[in-house]
Amino acid sequence: MPTDNSHSDSWILAAQCPSRLGTVDVVTRFLKERHCYITELNSFDDALSQRFFIRAVFRPEQGFDEQAFQRHFAERSGEFDMSFTLNAASRRVPTIIMVSKADHCLNDLLYRYRIGQLPIDIRAVISNHPDLEALTAWHQLPYYHLPVTAETRAEQEAQISEVIDASGAELIVLARYMQVLTPAFCERVSGRAINIHHSLLPGFRGARPYHQAWEKGVKLVGATAHYINEDLDEGPIIAQGVEAVDHTHSPDDMVARGRDIECLTLARAVRYHVQQRIFLHQGKTVVFAD
Amino acid sequence: MPTDNSHSDSWILAAQCPSRLGTVDVVTRFLKERHCYITELNSFDDALSQRFFIRAVFRPEQGFDEQAFQRHFAERSGEFDMSFTLNAASRRVPTIIMVSKADHCLNDLLYRYRIGQLPIDIRAVISNHPDLEALTAWHQLPYYHLPVTAETRAEQEAQISEVIDASGAELIVLARYMQVLTPAFCERVSGRAINIHHSLLPGFRGARPYHQAWEKGVKLVGATAHYINEDLDEGPIIAQGVEAVDHTHSPDDMVARGRDIECLTLARAVRYHVQQRIFLHQGKTVVFAD
Amino acid sequence: MPTDNSHSDSWILAAQCPSRLGTVDVVTRFLKERHCYITELNSFDDALSQRFFIRAVFRPEQGFDEQAFQRHFAERSGEFDMSFTLNAASRRVPTIIMVSKADHCLNDLLYRYRIGQLPIDIRAVISNHPDLEALTAWHQLPYYHLPVTAETRAEQEAQISEVIDASGAELIVLARYMQVLTPAFCERVSGRAINIHHSLLPGFRGARPYHQAWEKGVKLVGATAHYINEDLDEGPIIAQGVEAVDHTHSPDDMVARGRDIECLTLARAVRYHVQQRIFLHQGKTVVFAD
Amino acid sequence: MPTDNSHSDSWILAAQCPSRLGTVDVVTRFLKERHCYITELNSFDDALSQRFFIRAVFRPEQGFDEQAFQRHFAERSGEFDMSFTLNAASRRVPTIIMVSKADHCLNDLLYRYRIGQLPIDIRAVISNHPDLEALTAWHQLPYYHLPVTAETRAEQEAQISEVIDASGAELIVLARYMQVLTPAFCERVSGRAINIHHSLLPGFRGARPYHQAWEKGVKLVGATAHYINEDLDEGPIIAQGVEAVDHTHSPDDMVARGRDIECLTLARAVRYHVQQRIFLHQGKTVVFAD
Repeated sequence: MPTDNSHSDSWILAAQCPSRLGTVDVVTRFLKERHCYITELNSFDDALSQRFFIRAVFRPEQGFDEQAFQRHFAERSGEFDMSFTLNAASRRVPTIIMVSKADHCLNDLLYRYRIGQLPIDIRAVISNHPDLEALTAWHQLPYYHLPVTAETRAEQEAQISEVIDASGAELIVLARYMQVLTPAFCERVSGRAINIHHSLLPGFRGARPYHQAWEKGVKLVGATAHYINEDLDEGPIIAQGVEAVDHTHSPDDMVARGRDIECLTLARAVRYHVQQRIFLHQGKTVVFAD
Repeated sequence: MPTDNSHSDSWILAAQCPSRLGTVDVVTRFLKERHCYITELNSFDDALSQRFFIRAVFRPEQGFDEQAFQRHFAERSGEFDMSFTLNAASRRVPTIIMVSKADHCLNDLLYRYRIGQLPIDIRAVISNHPDLEALTAWHQLPYYHLPVTAETRAEQEAQISEVIDASGAELIVLARYMQVLTPAFCERVSGRAINIHHSLLPGFRGARPYHQAWEKGVKLVGATAHYINEDLDEGPIIAQGVEAVDHTHSPDDMVARGRDIECLTLARAVRYHVQQRIFLHQGKTVVFAD
Repeated sequence: MPTDNSHSDSWILAAQCPSRLGTVDVVTRFLKERHCYITELNSFDDALSQRFFIRAVFRPEQGFDEQAFQRHFAERSGEFDMSFTLNAASRRVPTIIMVSKADHCLNDLLYRYRIGQLPIDIRAVISNHPDLEALTAWHQLPYYHLPVTAETRAEQEAQISEVIDASGAELIVLARYMQVLTPAFCERVSGRAINIHHSLLPGFRGARPYHQAWEKGVKLVGATAHYINEDLDEGPIIAQGVEAVDHTHSPDDMVARGRDIECLTLARAVRYHVQQRIFLHQGKTVVFAD
Repeated sequence: MPTDNSHSDSWILAAQCPSRLGTVDVVTRFLKERHCYITELNSFDDALSQRFFIRAVFRPEQGFDEQAFQRHFAERSGEFDMSFTLNAASRRVPTIIMVSKADHCLNDLLYRYRIGQLPIDIRAVISNHPDLEALTAWHQLPYYHLPVTAETRAEQEAQISEVIDASGAELIVLARYMQVLTPAFCERVSGRAINIHHSLLPGFRGARPYHQAWEKGVKLVGATAHYINEDLDEGPIIAQGVEAVDHTHSPDDMVARGRDIECLTLARAVRYHVQQRIFLHQGKTVVFAD
């Protein structure tokens, strides 16, 4: 976390557009003209896809009118066909967490949320099982138990969508939610739903990845945080982590051992998302990591 | 490297057999009776396959007759159906290195060999290209340039086998040898030929794994050292390593970045092999790593 | 966690003694005679201090009388001057956790305890502040708020000792307990009290290690779990972990970033302790890690 | 290595100055006006020291006159009191390597140089011992054997300075050069001499750091690449790496085990330097790592 991000008066502007001379200048000149001091700046130009990405953290040195900034920057950057987001660095992103029975990622996210380490505002926890209600309740958050079967998937997802909409959630974190999602739902939350899969994707997709890993006798297991898309384990990868294993570890040992790296990898991906460090383009991510 | 392995008077006994009460005792009692002081001992019992593995490093406190030890231990351990190997810890294993054009792994292995860090006795370097002859010659080692085409594969492999046999090599290291090998050759060197593949197997098998990794937008690339079997990229895994990558890395950048982890992973696997730390069973390895 | 450790019928024997021919044999022969099947065995001989260490995990194949085993093994191993411990692998070690205000390590340990990942039986949490009572209470554990000043240190430590004794605790975990302890107390809990220090000891001892690290401009910060002795930050090191930092991190950022590695390193050390993987000798540890 | 850095037509501009509104703009506007397309941009503002740092990789879309650029940018940025460097990304920095007897870092650097992975132009290798002449000669580089004693230090350093000056070297790499240097020499090469120390500084400064580490029973050893200043092991830290060790490792084992991490850490620091990723300020570094 960079020095100034936590200041209540810092803002983050993130933008992308086709590559073209002047893309940086249109951003930096605009900021200077409006007396916004840039404390951190990263840009990247993808030569292969001819796409430009930029992220600026800045501190207004005079008064700041968010809506005026939005409107004027949209005008100024229009000729570059630039899409952008602007948010206060201190803004806590409204978030829904979805879980099943495993609670390690939920426990980890709730802890980081509680001590203010992760700038999210958790609006609710949704689960297809009742098990994690007490943990959620202790953090004084609403818990929605929405059971599901293969037959009721569409209705249940409609209920989930309702909770999301009613809560104003902008981010959905699948913290070991062990259910297939319909393409329609995936489409609906595209670009704002992060899943943690307990393998180094694209290896060991699908069910029971630690058991697959054990079968192959691998010496490293891992976890992958990614945006979901129509194919649950195939969305754009945000972050990956690994843990060493050996012959002494049964599949169940790997499950136990993998918990830490799942928690760390998911928390990192959520942090990157809410700090606007991630850009999506052509099924892959550009991540200005720290 | 454990404290005493380098002593000229240390020996390593490695054995495996079906699980049964008394497997440890038959080894440790025999060593004690022959006044062999155990400086390092590891055993593992695989509950799933009902198989027992043991490795002992010991120092004879009185005279040591290798052949008598072999003979008597074979007798003693016979009832347990135990297979075993016995070698002086200081013994340098006769080794052949096979390469193509990429020289990073060869350069690394030759360096470790030259300073005595890897207890191998390199007898020759074999390549299907002439490129690495000068590097090999500088280390005063013979270089066999044995070109190959899809049509001449069998003859070329016969030549390779001849070099292996004539040199007395017990270990073959495929240090980025970029040719398919026939099942017959793989069978011939089974259990004593180590390959380095530039991905985290079983992910990205086959050709151009870094390009595959780039396509998928992964955030970690890796390397896998494994024994070869009939299917070149599918043999028992010995060691794996990873390196972080991001959106700024083109496939060529990944190739460059992967070199270090390939060298380290291969050298580690070779060391484990010559220190008799690896056991093969049912297509997987037991590795008493350090 | 090795495959069989979790079986209710597995036992762990850990012993050390001066180096001498037969040290392994006296253990393994005894186990065989009593029909105890060894599933995992590690021994190490320290050539410099002439000291022998052994750890065996075994499964009795016939009835098992713990006290008879203790008594007979003491007799048998007496001539080797062997000290040893014997415990059921499934035994949950009675434990006291001591904290101040920071709750990340406590939260982590309570979580692992709650899901049964760490075989400890937490008897109480002791703190010099009231802050962490609610978290402790949610886990249905007693919380002792024992405030302390420089003047009342001796009395407060007497209270702590009373709680420890009354609870039957065999292990004391200092999970970011930010108070100096008297030499008398340290002596009293010697060999059974584990502290986490937020630096790579012996670097950055004492107060505010992250601030010290920031002053020096290091690129890695770390954490060290160690047994406490008279000098709080100088006891035998059990485990260490690191995390990358850079110029963008203020001391406070390092504090935030260090939390994860502190939790992981402390949990690892506690696990090693309760699995009897650690041996103390001459101010250092032998750790049969997994 | 970012995608475009290797292009023969890419340039790198690195600058620093006191913090002030417009620092980014003066760089980016200038580049745009001169039709230079920015492919990678990083800036950082250090709130504590009120200092601004920026690095831009750009590709001129029209003709490029280096000297005109230098002159005009100096004029333009003058009001910001900006110091800057400008170099072609493909430029190979003239470099001198200094060694003693240990050859692992030299071997590693020569290899990376030979395959073009490190954009340096090695002009000579200097040593106080004759041992590494053959290795150097094989790479067709001049070798200067300049013996030294405590009494002849000043004269020998004068000889070294002569070689540096005659060769046009801009970077001096101390690849395990095991001699104290005089403050005068350190001053002379300040900001352009990189040393590798085999410990995690500031821990274990001075002689035989692995032996010190062994004495303390640490579980991680490391290496630190840093610019030298008057106090040899105290200069600004560029990069650090670690390697796990345990009770089985003697000091000599640690020496062997540390070689890899020394090579990797030094090579990384050299790469950062020649890619102009490092800024020096108040005894610390800002490193725009990749």
